[in-house]
Amino acid sequence: MNFCSHCGSDQVRHRIPEGDDRPRYVCDNCGAIHYSNPRVIVGCVPEYEGKILLCRRAIEPRSGLWTLPAGFMENGETTLQGATRETWEEARAEVYEQQLYRIFDVPHINQVYMFYRARIVDGAFGVGPESEEVDLFAEDSIPWDEIAFPSVYHTLREFFDDRTQAHWPVRVSAITR
Amino acid sequence: MNFCSHCGSDQVRHRIPEGDDRPRYVCDNCGAIHYSNPRVIVGCVPEYEGKILLCRRAIEPRSGLWTLPAGFMENGETTLQGATRETWEEARAEVYEQQLYRIFDVPHINQVYMFYRARIVDGAFGVGPESEEVDLFAEDSIPWDEIAFPSVYHTLREFFDDRTQAHWPVRVSAITR
Repeated sequence: MNFCSHCGSDQVRHRIPEGDDRPRYVCDNCGAIHYSNPRVIVGCVPEYEGKILLCRRAIEPRSGLWTLPAGFMENGETTLQGATRETWEEARAEVYEQQLYRIFDVPHINQVYMFYRARIVDGAFGVGPESEEVDLFAEDSIPWDEIAFPSVYHTLREFFDDRTQAHWPVRVSAITR
Repeated sequence: MNFCSHCGSDQVRHRIPEGDDRPRYVCDNCGAIHYSNPRVIVGCVPEYEGKILLCRRAIEPRSGLWTLPAGFMENGETTLQGATRETWEEARAEVYEQQLYRIFDVPHINQVYMFYRARIVDGAFGVGPESEEVDLFAEDSIPWDEIAFPSVYHTLREFFDDRTQAHWPVRVSAITR
């Protein structure tokens, strides 16, 4: 932050405001405090006839690697709506029976991931603008060495484990550097 | 947003950027797009000998009403760390055995609430600077008519219901206007 978005001054300092205990961007001209908070990434584990839908990323970061459909939660939507929207945007799949499944804290990049399990309407999918390729994978054909993010890797591993027990606890844990 | 925080220009418009599908604050001078995303509120349901710790708010909104200790998740922390920190800050209670319990989407104010169940070390607590009063409440003494937020009200109701079954599913649902 170079300028105050409220008054336009360049007197913005990264310092601890009075009564606070951590540094914020504070405008010394108008007094505005500009908070920054973690963002939520919402996505799905879309399933059809036992196979899981993955997207090969067409954009950075991790372009060319495979991921579950997921992206930044937007204002005005719920986590479930966001996960459903991202699955449409990236994989052109409509999903139903969404159930919260896996939460990851990724504190070093100020993110919280929330994945829903879901079923794909008619098994139909396509390739959204942020994907190079989209496909359904059985457990033994998942490209484990080409998964884009640790959160996706762990979610998939646990998904197949949990499926053997037909037991789907909602888990939360942290991914650290 | 009146000024671009990147270049200081006042040519900031709320419009749909090229290739996007919803309005953002866009600087027509330097091209910066300023995203805004939902924030996460983290808190605890702190229990000691069957009683729950509540805080009477000393600050707006809902000053004077009772709440579970909770507040905005900060950068660099996990949801569990944030919930633990807020419980210390507002109620001067140290907690352990934190277990994720209840998630609420509140889309009309761009918030996601995440509550952890937790136990209070030695049953010790105090009054943090954002609280007027802090106390332990048995189920039959909860001030139901003076609860600050719907998310807190529902979390407490479900907590006492779930306790009768000793069954603690992680639930997510939306609170709408």
